[in-house]
Amino acid sequence: MAEPYRLTATGALAQFNNGSLTVEEYATSLLQHIDERQPVVKAWEYLNHDLVLSQARALDQIPKEQRGPLHGVAIAVKDVIYTKDMPTQHNSAIYTGSNPEIDAASVTILRSSGALILGKTCTTEFAATVKGPETTNPHDPGRTPGGSSSGSGAAVADYQAPIALGTQTGGSTIRPGSFNGVYAFKPTWGAISREGQKVYSLILDTLGLYARSVEDLKVLASVFGLKDDRVPEVKEDGVRGLRFGVLKTMVWEHAGPGLKDAMAKGVGLLKARGAEVTEFEFPSTFSKLPDWHTIILKSDGRTAFRPEYLTAKDQLDQSLIEHVEETHGYTRRDYLEAYDGVAALRPKWDEIASRYDAVIVPSVPDEAPEGIASTGNAIFNSMWTALHVPVINVPGFGGQNGMPIGLSLTASRYHDQALLEVAKVVGEVWEKEGGWTSKL
Amino acid sequence: MAEPYRLTATGALAQFNNGSLTVEEYATSLLQHIDERQPVVKAWEYLNHDLVLSQARALDQIPKEQRGPLHGVAIAVKDVIYTKDMPTQHNSAIYTGSNPEIDAASVTILRSSGALILGKTCTTEFAATVKGPETTNPHDPGRTPGGSSSGSGAAVADYQAPIALGTQTGGSTIRPGSFNGVYAFKPTWGAISREGQKVYSLILDTLGLYARSVEDLKVLASVFGLKDDRVPEVKEDGVRGLRFGVLKTMVWEHAGPGLKDAMAKGVGLLKARGAEVTEFEFPSTFSKLPDWHTIILKSDGRTAFRPEYLTAKDQLDQSLIEHVEETHGYTRRDYLEAYDGVAALRPKWDEIASRYDAVIVPSVPDEAPEGIASTGNAIFNSMWTALHVPVINVPGFGGQNGMPIGLSLTASRYHDQALLEVAKVVGEVWEKEGGWTSKL
Repeated sequence: MAEPYRLTATGALAQFNNGSLTVEEYATSLLQHIDERQPVVKAWEYLNHDLVLSQARALDQIPKEQRGPLHGVAIAVKDVIYTKDMPTQHNSAIYTGSNPEIDAASVTILRSSGALILGKTCTTEFAATVKGPETTNPHDPGRTPGGSSSGSGAAVADYQAPIALGTQTGGSTIRPGSFNGVYAFKPTWGAISREGQKVYSLILDTLGLYARSVEDLKVLASVFGLKDDRVPEVKEDGVRGLRFGVLKTMVWEHAGPGLKDAMAKGVGLLKARGAEVTEFEFPSTFSKLPDWHTIILKSDGRTAFRPEYLTAKDQLDQSLIEHVEETHGYTRRDYLEAYDGVAALRPKWDEIASRYDAVIVPSVPDEAPEGIASTGNAIFNSMWTALHVPVINVPGFGGQNGMPIGLSLTASRYHDQALLEVAKVVGEVWEKEGGWTSKL
Repeated sequence: MAEPYRLTATGALAQFNNGSLTVEEYATSLLQHIDERQPVVKAWEYLNHDLVLSQARALDQIPKEQRGPLHGVAIAVKDVIYTKDMPTQHNSAIYTGSNPEIDAASVTILRSSGALILGKTCTTEFAATVKGPETTNPHDPGRTPGGSSSGSGAAVADYQAPIALGTQTGGSTIRPGSFNGVYAFKPTWGAISREGQKVYSLILDTLGLYARSVEDLKVLASVFGLKDDRVPEVKEDGVRGLRFGVLKTMVWEHAGPGLKDAMAKGVGLLKARGAEVTEFEFPSTFSKLPDWHTIILKSDGRTAFRPEYLTAKDQLDQSLIEHVEETHGYTRRDYLEAYDGVAALRPKWDEIASRYDAVIVPSVPDEAPEGIASTGNAIFNSMWTALHVPVINVPGFGGQNGMPIGLSLTASRYHDQALLEVAKVVGEVWEKEGGWTSKL
């Protein structure tokens, strides 16, 4: 039998349920594995073994009939999300040792469902810069795991946690998902409370979820109350008959060989399995979307980081100082044009996406770049964040250096459950036939 | 000389500056006044005399050249906004004694400017119900001070603080402003960080500010970094030549005699002083705005209160349980129609408002109702919250029972500074000639 630390959430739940594993045994296995790997991967900003074990033991005391839907499942939390019993430090010297002693809404929901909160994972500063933390890519420590949810993506890929929370304002959930070869899910904006995670941009910030299986994401979706208007069909026949759009987007010029190859393979496999695939382009009205995202982000950053700017400017990253000082030069009029422009595109995109079961789009320009100084480029992600739509990175392909490259599936807003069902059958095809397999 | 507790913020700053008053003397005066009035007005949820006095003494130690723009100014904080040294309890049994030990963004900015945080003021549950806290209207303890920022509005009216923070998701800042006869300012959505205040609806929640003078609001606007694209003209000639729109709105049927009278008087006074006043109606495309606000509010409430629902449903108000359980029956499609519908109206409103220096709209249906069980009706406020525009309640009129009734000035988004300048000259006219004077 595999070591407990290798279990998915669903796998662990089954073993807790049939009595073959205790939460304490499970937690012990995870902690031992983390201890071995932390010196290389450095995914964790804070991890308290005693706290984890005492909570694991407490969970073991709960009678079976009173257990929650995530009973005992270990969850890593990005260190921009409040946890009442651990510090939340945002990778900022300003918040060293800061411990607000309150749970973020997401953490409250997870705990109330029986989850075991493991610890806090490394992030870029306030999840708002592309300067990497010390975390490395578990598949190659010479490469970035992406960011800003660096530790969360790396921990799930490296079997240090089956589930992790991230956030996304540009590409902070999907990019690490692709670079680390795991499922990453950014639900519809507003569908899960973002209370208790650091604000960068209210209209962009979204909670993100990592897992190594779609089944696990479905359990999370249920716990978080994601609910489409229509209960989605469970696909019994794989991808056969499903309608996929393919959209390379207006920034396809950024695609490297790894992405081009993955897109060709991914589409080819779906076609070969009987899916209907239609490539299309954005209408011209979408052309300013990437620029509008930038304008919103930097302008909202002025509001978001004013407190830190006033109290500890010398400890703030230069890029964030520039947001507050408006070196970008955007006026309020520019902001409103971008804000209203994106708002007008949302229903237009929903109408386009409603023609398909899912739309296949890039996750990243290519496999994870070398070095950990920069967490990479969010150019293929930010438009979907701005449009508020659900996005899932599905792993399955390999680049020129053997590193993973995923592709994203997206849909119209509040089709989160439907998208998960599609991601499940797509993932099965791509994982089996995509040619990339984790060696971890 | 008047007692220090009666000073506006600007008045207190002048006395600190010329050395005729220390912050400790000022704080002592306020605390004595609060002690006298708290048994009747009950504006405070938490007030720690020792903490206030020790901070006042610390402020007095700061050399003059290092003092901030709000040096020593006492500020009341609505109890849904985090303060690191005081509990934040949201008028919810679930959060009794809860103390996250972190400052909300707004409080960080105020402290960094030298403000003296006095204490926490009473609110309806999570600023999300209309069930009044125990706070009474200082002008008539048999009447509501409005809500949800009940304590903040009452405290400023009753000279228990010159400045208070509120929040607005429907009419929670403007309504208490009108009922208590003080200035209340809801800035453009997104212009001031709402980080660290309880979330009800991300797209609606806005920080609100109370003061007894527009000069004080201008100091706050500067501290919070509100900045229009164009530096607004200071009006040297009163309201003469200013262009005002008058918009009774599609819900004017809710207007009582007090509002009708105030609107007639307010408009008449401006005309008499040489302003150009044009009454107009919303285009028909705005007709669903009040309903859309309701749909957004209740649907977002489902997301916002899920954590409390899962952990302590029995301690949650029935109206909030109903949000989570979706007894309203709104679908995701209904929500998106409302969300996108309001988004499309925002630039349309900006275009309309740009024809005027300000648009005069109702603040409330009438003077504060009797009893404190309900905090009143937000029907005239919620549309402006949804449109994200700046709104200022200007006091000045009296109703049939001698209670205050204000009117609101609004404008297009990010014309906060310009609106303050207009409010100043309008307020001067209405206060002098409006016939209502506080007896407190």
